[in-house]
Amino acid sequence: ARTWFQSKLTGLPVEHHTDAAGNVWVTLHGASERSLALGSHLDSVPNGGWLDGCLGFLTAFEVLRGIAEEFHGRPPVTLRLVDWADEEGARFGRSLFGSSAFAGTQTIAADRLRKDREGTTLEEALGRCGVDVERVGDAGMERRGIAAYLELHIEQGPVLERLGLPLGAVSGTKGVERHLVTFRGQEAHSGSTPMAVRRDALAAAARLALEIRPIATKHPDAVCTVGSVKTYPGIVTAVVGLCEATLDQRDLDAGVLAEMLREAREASERFAAEERCTVEWSKIWSIEPIPFHPDLIRLCEEAIVETTGQSHRLPSGPLHDAAEVARAGIPTTMMFVQSLAGISHNKIEDTRPEHLELAVRAMDRLAAKTIRWMQRTEG
Amino acid sequence: ARTWFQSKLTGLPVEHHTDAAGNVWVTLHGASERSLALGSHLDSVPNGGWLDGCLGFLTAFEVLRGIAEEFHGRPPVTLRLVDWADEEGARFGRSLFGSSAFAGTQTIAADRLRKDREGTTLEEALGRCGVDVERVGDAGMERRGIAAYLELHIEQGPVLERLGLPLGAVSGTKGVERHLVTFRGQEAHSGSTPMAVRRDALAAAARLALEIRPIATKHPDAVCTVGSVKTYPGIVTAVVGLCEATLDQRDLDAGVLAEMLREAREASERFAAEERCTVEWSKIWSIEPIPFHPDLIRLCEEAIVETTGQSHRLPSGPLHDAAEVARAGIPTTMMFVQSLAGISHNKIEDTRPEHLELAVRAMDRLAAKTIRWMQRTEG
Repeated sequence: ARTWFQSKLTGLPVEHHTDAAGNVWVTLHGASERSLALGSHLDSVPNGGWLDGCLGFLTAFEVLRGIAEEFHGRPPVTLRLVDWADEEGARFGRSLFGSSAFAGTQTIAADRLRKDREGTTLEEALGRCGVDVERVGDAGMERRGIAAYLELHIEQGPVLERLGLPLGAVSGTKGVERHLVTFRGQEAHSGSTPMAVRRDALAAAARLALEIRPIATKHPDAVCTVGSVKTYPGIVTAVVGLCEATLDQRDLDAGVLAEMLREAREASERFAAEERCTVEWSKIWSIEPIPFHPDLIRLCEEAIVETTGQSHRLPSGPLHDAAEVARAGIPTTMMFVQSLAGISHNKIEDTRPEHLELAVRAMDRLAAKTIRWMQRTEG
Repeated sequence: ARTWFQSKLTGLPVEHHTDAAGNVWVTLHGASERSLALGSHLDSVPNGGWLDGCLGFLTAFEVLRGIAEEFHGRPPVTLRLVDWADEEGARFGRSLFGSSAFAGTQTIAADRLRKDREGTTLEEALGRCGVDVERVGDAGMERRGIAAYLELHIEQGPVLERLGLPLGAVSGTKGVERHLVTFRGQEAHSGSTPMAVRRDALAAAARLALEIRPIATKHPDAVCTVGSVKTYPGIVTAVVGLCEATLDQRDLDAGVLAEMLREAREASERFAAEERCTVEWSKIWSIEPIPFHPDLIRLCEEAIVETTGQSHRLPSGPLHDAAEVARAGIPTTMMFVQSLAGISHNKIEDTRPEHLELAVRAMDRLAAKTIRWMQRTEG
């Protein structure tokens, strides 16, 4: 994909290079070295769809090409196009590899010995792509001069489709609390153990799987999910003695996220006590909410309204490279375009052609507005 | 175990043989050819305890030895001791092998190609034990002359321990309905899918796992168990699209069992509809309730009261060889002795020594009462 993309640069007044983390940068120098960066990623999950990442990157390229033409190769600010390395983390389980190196949040010491399915380490695989694991942090040098970052992505959810809107302005990426919740009761014979004396670990987990719904729906954008339940011994003739459930909670507001976590934990303890079980929590992973820049969100809404007549502001549940850029302190926003049936990471991922066109037009407007905003806010 | 047991027969006025299904019979001929059979099984599950099966068989042997002594080798009726073959079905997944052959309910045509973990078929394994699969049904000839069957077993549940009673009379074995219940919703991204639009197959299954409790507890001895839940894709970042739950329902009353099955099915359909999922049922296995003989249950209670002062009548959740004997139309009952903590199929399975002694004494009384009952009811 990267070789194919390089062929598209022929004849354009740009330079390009690969940074220390494997991110590809295309630079259109402007009157000022202050830069507007636009990008996304060309990698995909295995058997993924055609839009996740690729749409955002090629739209960014089209916007850069239009600006190069409009300003005869010399825009008022510098334009930088970025193809982030290994956004999906499909091979080594570590997503946002390139953008986190850029942001300085990369955890390469912890990640270098991660292995793929064949046993190749991340360090070996990076070496084969010309990335020296000791130098990955040098990608942070690319931050110099970047005053704003914009990214278009498919929504990967059903919100815009349900509202009948092609485009939305993204207010930030939700924080995530991800935990393994283990209930322990007493394995017992399903035929000889009366209902009244059972200590059924599944019953406690089932109550939690249902209780997370009122916990989430108190807040407009919050989500809570039990995605995996495992029962032990897990046979038809035994009351469940041990039940493991995963819990994933997300919201854009750190206070809401903390409240939901506390409520789920308290509910799990109440259910465990009532079912005469025990419960134990262990954190799988968490990340704080990352709000985008209020000025840029507003400009994104303006661009969408001018293009389609109506906008909607929504947080992103999935993480994106834009979240890492925002964590680096760079003013950032994203635009979402409607996903059909909310489906992504799947061959049937799709978006209507007319919505794709509106997305490119709105991103072009947003870039122009952002350049003017950069000029207004300079110094 | 069988070789060890044969050495115990030395000097006793008995004959022994192995029948066409591999059951071992020891016969003490009496004045009448009408026979009282007593037995259980010497096989065990892997890593099982020391009492499940073995206690009942050795108690039966001790009772036979006492009767042989009391009547100087010639009791009024014939005594038959049986060690049923492969009660547990641990290797081929088909329990009650020998007793079902005896009862004429064996399904050898369906079972002969069952394989163990190493790929050996049941037919091959039987051949190595000298059992010809074509002749298994001939074990039914052993039924001739048997007028009653008695079996002692550990309870394998907590009922007697909770009542503070060493022994109980078993009213029959519960019927079982065993089904796989599959809920289908829509797999979706846990971050981007709002709560209100989810079709969460786990939520429907969780509601069923909880609803089976009020369905069971309406009836004094009924049990309902969801022993296994499997979630697909079963990852922390996805709403569950498909959820498989096993359901096991048991009661001694066929009407209660049918009512519980209907109620669970209706509840599953209601939950599926409310969660915008579908539900599908497939039967794993079922067996009708098998009540024991009212006269023998009463004699068992008398023997227990005379031995310990108090009895309790309870149905058996687990199946036993006695159920197959009862299905063959032979008057049958069982006695249960208390299990510590209700635990079985485990190395820690245990019963107090004083309770074991009471059990042997009560079985001896029950055998004497049953012989008198056989004499009263003859002809």
